[in-house]
Amino acid sequence: MSRPRVVIVGGGFGGLSAARALRRADVDILLIDRTNHHLFQPLLYQAATAALAPSDISAPIRWILRGQRNVATRLGTVERIDRAARTIALAGVDEPIPYDYLILATGSRHAYFGHPEWEEFAPGLKSLDDAQAIRSRFLLALERAEWEPDPQARQALLTFVIVGGGPTGVELAGALPEMGRNAFRRDFRHIDTSRVRVVLVEGGPRLLASFPESLSARAQRDLERLGVEVRTSTIVTGIDAGGVTLGAERIVTRCVFWAAGSVASPLGRALGAPVDRAGRVLVEPTLALPGDDQVFVAGDLAAVPWRDGLLVPGVAPAANQMGTRAARNILAQLKGRPMQAFRYANKGELATIGRHAAIASLGGGKVRIAGYPAWLFWLFLHVMYLVGFRNRLSVLLEWGFNYIFHQRAVRVVSEGRDGLR
Amino acid sequence: MSRPRVVIVGGGFGGLSAARALRRADVDILLIDRTNHHLFQPLLYQAATAALAPSDISAPIRWILRGQRNVATRLGTVERIDRAARTIALAGVDEPIPYDYLILATGSRHAYFGHPEWEEFAPGLKSLDDAQAIRSRFLLALERAEWEPDPQARQALLTFVIVGGGPTGVELAGALPEMGRNAFRRDFRHIDTSRVRVVLVEGGPRLLASFPESLSARAQRDLERLGVEVRTSTIVTGIDAGGVTLGAERIVTRCVFWAAGSVASPLGRALGAPVDRAGRVLVEPTLALPGDDQVFVAGDLAAVPWRDGLLVPGVAPAANQMGTRAARNILAQLKGRPMQAFRYANKGELATIGRHAAIASLGGGKVRIAGYPAWLFWLFLHVMYLVGFRNRLSVLLEWGFNYIFHQRAVRVVSEGRDGLR
Repeated sequence: MSRPRVVIVGGGFGGLSAARALRRADVDILLIDRTNHHLFQPLLYQAATAALAPSDISAPIRWILRGQRNVATRLGTVERIDRAARTIALAGVDEPIPYDYLILATGSRHAYFGHPEWEEFAPGLKSLDDAQAIRSRFLLALERAEWEPDPQARQALLTFVIVGGGPTGVELAGALPEMGRNAFRRDFRHIDTSRVRVVLVEGGPRLLASFPESLSARAQRDLERLGVEVRTSTIVTGIDAGGVTLGAERIVTRCVFWAAGSVASPLGRALGAPVDRAGRVLVEPTLALPGDDQVFVAGDLAAVPWRDGLLVPGVAPAANQMGTRAARNILAQLKGRPMQAFRYANKGELATIGRHAAIASLGGGKVRIAGYPAWLFWLFLHVMYLVGFRNRLSVLLEWGFNYIFHQRAVRVVSEGRDGLR
Repeated sequence: MSRPRVVIVGGGFGGLSAARALRRADVDILLIDRTNHHLFQPLLYQAATAALAPSDISAPIRWILRGQRNVATRLGTVERIDRAARTIALAGVDEPIPYDYLILATGSRHAYFGHPEWEEFAPGLKSLDDAQAIRSRFLLALERAEWEPDPQARQALLTFVIVGGGPTGVELAGALPEMGRNAFRRDFRHIDTSRVRVVLVEGGPRLLASFPESLSARAQRDLERLGVEVRTSTIVTGIDAGGVTLGAERIVTRCVFWAAGSVASPLGRALGAPVDRAGRVLVEPTLALPGDDQVFVAGDLAAVPWRDGLLVPGVAPAANQMGTRAARNILAQLKGRPMQAFRYANKGELATIGRHAAIASLGGGKVRIAGYPAWLFWLFLHVMYLVGFRNRLSVLLEWGFNYIFHQRAVRVVSEGRDGLR
């Protein structure tokens, strides 16, 4: 009898944790991803702000799993899932791929709240390509501003609007003025990069809504000290090539970055199981589909109730824990034991605000840290968790240099990439 | 009276050296480049073979020149040069840019010997974009081979043909089998990457024609020991999606890389001065244009006689020396002194062949080194010359890891990039 075949779709935190949790299992694992690399998403904003190179925050999936002999890795895009036949189909591949167990962990993309036409003007930040697009736009805007004779056009090029006051938006907003003030200060002759205008727009009443209120307020103060204009309770009503409309107000800008909400990967709907409004799959407490214990969903793609009517948040530790739980529930079935319900162990939340400042909420908000100690804690945790020894050292080196010399080294704008229109 | 205005086009070795040689001069310098970065071309093949990140071998031009207050840097593409009016025009910019002195150092692109249709199937290696395209093709070919059921199609995916036996071709050819044998060995389950087939095709009778014959022979032996098939005196007669035709022979492959000759930047012809067959400008011994001492050409774009009927080679030290000479001849004119003829100080030639092997010809071939000592010498020189303290350290770190762990860390294939058809 051949060994059970576990197919994992997605090489993010959820998929990788699932594969690792099955490392001693008597199964054949196939891990499929659209790209060849695992991406350390918590540091993606650093690639977008020229502080780290794409290769610093990513590693080839097959390299990560090279020592685990029961895993094979395949580059491909899943197009269809046939739960009746227990197969999936890859784009451009005729032969369907059979599974005995399927773990779907394909995450989320940014969503534009019914305005897909905004995407062209306001790139979001989910992939390395996104990070490079944002980096190019930012750098090219400064290049153009340097030689723009018209003061109004120049001001538009030096204005950056970030939509969304969650961790990604706050981290981007904190990094931009810091770059202008330090890294770029001596490089330009005609513009004063320390005077870039950064506006952070949030629809809700406060930044970082998932944190305790006192920390939200602290983050806003820290950002404002850096010169960021924070607009809470402000709704974006239009984005086009010339700027952003906020109800009656118009901000003229050439660079808008989107960090305001995501929608689950379309593969969730392809399962034919119930999904919520954001496309997340309504899984059982075991993370299996209702009525189908051979298909599991982990990470951002799963809608899992947590507390106070909230869902388990779309953060890396939650995806890791779900991936592990899904894998263990497959093992339980194979051994004839009962499956267990997923329980989110909330280690806390962290967000960093420029240089030297961060906020951390630990133990469900019981421990709150802000400022420099929180920033050191953030630094320590992120280096610890970065996948792969080599990436850790390289990031430490880059950070050391950035810290000491205020340098942003990863400033390549490739020829093919325009970014600004 | 305003200061003389020196416009330098090109931020490669020639242009940067020219700018630096003018650092104490009472002139206003404008350096224009199509990209925002200086590229350390001698290590470009390492970016193409996933050993170094693009940001390791490049640095923003305005960052390199940040401390030199008489230089301004501008991102732009020169479209026209009007020597009568002494202006240049940038694409998309209405206002022409005036100059008192112009230094053109825009280098060369790869040329396909009258077969521009080959470019699509056989990318060359001149820019970071080129390096990333080659890297993606190589990595994607391995990914596809891993899951290709048909043995012949699989073999085609594991066959790599490099056209051109100069330093770039030799360095690429030496790196590929080494990668397959070490870096990727444990990552794949179905293919044996140590058995990739690498064919190096050279039209002339020997590799590295500019080196002494004994070193050419040594390089060929070293490559063959790595498993590379070296075909000298072999002319490519066709390249298409399915493979390469060498007269009567056909090599079925999905990956062809082009390292066989270059043609000067089209700006040379835009000067309206005499050029040679490869588009290089036939400059005076002073590097000025015939009859126009206000326009100089430096680097690969200049055709400068050397010895034995050869031209000064298109290598970084030659470009550096020309840039400096052009700048000094401008200074001479400003000070009313006579200009001096350019004399190439040939420091020698180097090429590396995989791990632990290289060849070096110093003092016009009087000193010849091969093997491990030459490789150590190569390593030392390239680290020494890499622009910028930070890049040097980062490269040392990468190389240390690659050396100890046989790792190729920079293996990101971005989503947008297909490469293989």
